Amino acid sequence: MEKQKRFFLTEKEIPTEWYNIVADMKNKPLPMINPQTKQPITVEEMTGLFNRACSEQELNQTDAWIEIPEEVRDLYKSYRSTPLVRAYGLEKALDTPAHIYFKNESVSPVGSHKLNSALAQAYYCKKEGVTNITTETGAGQWGAALSYAAKAFGLELAVFMVKVSYNQKPYRRSIMQTFGAQVIASPSMSTKAGRKIITDAPNYQGSLGTAISEAVELAMQTPNCKYVLGSVLNHVTLHQTVIGLEAEKQMAMAGEYPDMVIACFGGGSNFGGLSFPFMRHNLLDGKKTEFIAAEPSSCPKLTRGVFQYDFGDEAGYTPMIPMFTLGHNFAPAHIHAGGLRYHGAGSIVSQLIKDGMMHGEDIPQLESFQAAELFARTEGIIPAPESAHAIAATIRAAKQCREAGQSKTILFNLSGHGLIDMTAYDQYLAGDLTNYVLPDEVIKENVSTLEKLV
Amino acid sequence: MEKQKRFFLTEKEIPTEWYNIVADMKNKPLPMINPQTKQPITVEEMTGLFNRACSEQELNQTDAWIEIPEEVRDLYKSYRSTPLVRAYGLEKALDTPAHIYFKNESVSPVGSHKLNSALAQAYYCKKEGVTNITTETGAGQWGAALSYAAKAFGLELAVFMVKVSYNQKPYRRSIMQTFGAQVIASPSMSTKAGRKIITDAPNYQGSLGTAISEAVELAMQTPNCKYVLGSVLNHVTLHQTVIGLEAEKQMAMAGEYPDMVIACFGGGSNFGGLSFPFMRHNLLDGKKTEFIAAEPSSCPKLTRGVFQYDFGDEAGYTPMIPMFTLGHNFAPAHIHAGGLRYHGAGSIVSQLIKDGMMHGEDIPQLESFQAAELFARTEGIIPAPESAHAIAATIRAAKQCREAGQSKTILFNLSGHGLIDMTAYDQYLAGDLTNYVLPDEVIKENVSTLEKLV
Repeated sequence: MEKQKRFFLTEKEIPTEWYNIVADMKNKPLPMINPQTKQPITVEEMTGLFNRACSEQELNQTDAWIEIPEEVRDLYKSYRSTPLVRAYGLEKALDTPAHIYFKNESVSPVGSHKLNSALAQAYYCKKEGVTNITTETGAGQWGAALSYAAKAFGLELAVFMVKVSYNQKPYRRSIMQTFGAQVIASPSMSTKAGRKIITDAPNYQGSLGTAISEAVELAMQTPNCKYVLGSVLNHVTLHQTVIGLEAEKQMAMAGEYPDMVIACFGGGSNFGGLSFPFMRHNLLDGKKTEFIAAEPSSCPKLTRGVFQYDFGDEAGYTPMIPMFTLGHNFAPAHIHAGGLRYHGAGSIVSQLIKDGMMHGEDIPQLESFQAAELFARTEGIIPAPESAHAIAATIRAAKQCREAGQSKTILFNLSGHGLIDMTAYDQYLAGDLTNYVLPDEVIKENVSTLEKLV
Repeated sequence: MEKQKRFFLTEKEIPTEWYNIVADMKNKPLPMINPQTKQPITVEEMTGLFNRACSEQELNQTDAWIEIPEEVRDLYKSYRSTPLVRAYGLEKALDTPAHIYFKNESVSPVGSHKLNSALAQAYYCKKEGVTNITTETGAGQWGAALSYAAKAFGLELAVFMVKVSYNQKPYRRSIMQTFGAQVIASPSMSTKAGRKIITDAPNYQGSLGTAISEAVELAMQTPNCKYVLGSVLNHVTLHQTVIGLEAEKQMAMAGEYPDMVIACFGGGSNFGGLSFPFMRHNLLDGKKTEFIAAEPSSCPKLTRGVFQYDFGDEAGYTPMIPMFTLGHNFAPAHIHAGGLRYHGAGSIVSQLIKDGMMHGEDIPQLESFQAAELFARTEGIIPAPESAHAIAATIRAAKQCREAGQSKTILFNLSGHGLIDMTAYDQYLAGDLTNYVLPDEVIKENVSTLEKLV
């Protein structure tokens, strides 16, 4: 009964630097390619779309530690450190000898980890004199975070929200509007990319890839405007490492070190954010922690995609990224974990998979909601459908511990809460959710178009 | 920049006792009356409806400190201490010399302070061998909290949810169902009280008073079942004092003591929970803190109600309570702060108002949402419409400080977040919300029926 449940850091212990894992990787990720020049993209080229600070961070392969600006740390203080929590309730329900911990990023004011990068990117844009920014959002977690960050730094923001989520999750749209952002359902008629898709497929419900195309196009056509991305790219994951750096100190407070680190996987930022500070010790100190990226069975780029150069968006506006991908024109099923409906993985994670440093695990939708329900009833928190994938993978591992009579220490990322995703829970409780496993033929057909890219 | 933003307690510093202000009041509240006997109600009589431990707490006028059971404290640890936050962003936007602090109860897993009493009441029921419980809920904050608490202690729960909220806030219904509770829109056909109202007024959208009648009736008719209340009564407020007891220690960490303590007011539990530990020092140590209960202009029992014996529910099933009331048959306007749509105040608060220890302040609906919007944009948290009343009263006070050139320390309770209340924000942003100030005639007509009660 006297066991400690939650671990916090003081404000002084909040990290002052982010961790750039690329500096410690023996095999660096392949470079991103400028599709015009077919050459590795440069910082100058990136600044056409992104702010300079993030462009430099994106291509930085030498500095392992990058300072968190004081203005960003000051806003981090309004919700960080987030608690590291021992999931005693879940352990008991599973009757497992495993020790289960989760990093609770859902306590951020907007309900997810996304604020960690949103504040950083908005800060850099403001500092560089940018006045307008654009972005995309899937389930709306990223859009909500950036809406608050934009307001905090006095920027105007336009958010392209994937249409299926716009309709499934109207509350997230309202949250963004309450913070003062403009929200557009994607595909929209506001951009060339959107108009083309609406014309070709009038009922298409959108994807992150399409929404990115629209946000990029609008940014390029708007004066003094930059595009801001919520995942996939290196600098976004860099900002998220504040999660793992805190967790490292908090696990030490609990007197433990994780044997397994688990996070859900969309573009990779919450996964990398929690994992990379621990993976550092695998790279440098001979630790043997296992890293698992939990992805939906309906969008299995890590477990069943191909490693190829591909575009980050549907229309092909972005640089080409060396990624595990299902093809940039892949249209994911309308699962409720909107933040995981993305065709590719970032270049760092893709390289780490090739190097055997981590692996993917695919989770069917029903299993993710069963895990979410058990977690809600034992720990009191209704998880985001995205985070539920990490919980499901954790439960699998904890059950294996029980069967093997083995006590492992498992750490997973509760990247967000699901209070805005109750429509999904309604459907689950009503028995209306189904599993969808992507057929091999669809993957083959999609990736067959990639050969000609590079 | 190095100013501390949030203050936490360690798990060992979480209070081990609740504070019972009645023991320290010179003028005790008048007793609750059993309408059958016309005599003060006894513990034995109360146990017909409530569990024994809470019945004893309800009538305890001698013990200032009551132990928090270890099992309850153990579950408190999953979200307590809640942060005390300095609202630097709001202060800056108001250009006020006031120091504004808020106690952030919205970080509880269910999003509000309600869990503090839900866990206690569910624990006592379980301990006494109860298997089923019933309750009412307005906006759904209480119902969500009790749904999780019931699951945590293995109790079956039926929740009567005020119909207007059931329709305005479907996500809260889903949350309760995800935790395993049965949710019924009130007035319903499941009870005599509900059937009578539906017959008399088929379009009636419900009130907390009606929902209480239905929950009480079902509890009385179900074997091994107790009724559980989310506010108004002394024992509920007692459990909520964990808020103020924590805040007292946290304010000391910040090196301050509040000149003003502000909370929104529905039945009084979040108000009393934050206030009473500070009011103790007014009662015992000569402190002069000002206590403000922020109520909606559409339901102004503190500022414009009468002090009378009245029923706690619409049908007249409960004991008669000495309260500031608008009449138990008062039908409040359909404002979005569902948790504040209640006709009366608890007996302790009513006595404290008579004694000049605190006062009410009524807030029009539009002012509450303007305050909420400013708070969201400056502090990043979208507040519950109920809590927005406390924010509005805080902003009034902070503006007075600016005009008077006076630096006061203001502490308010952020009783819950508004992420499930986005429909209300949608209407506000669309310009569709109106102010409704209750006409004098309606109050006169309602309270005129009370004379015959005692």
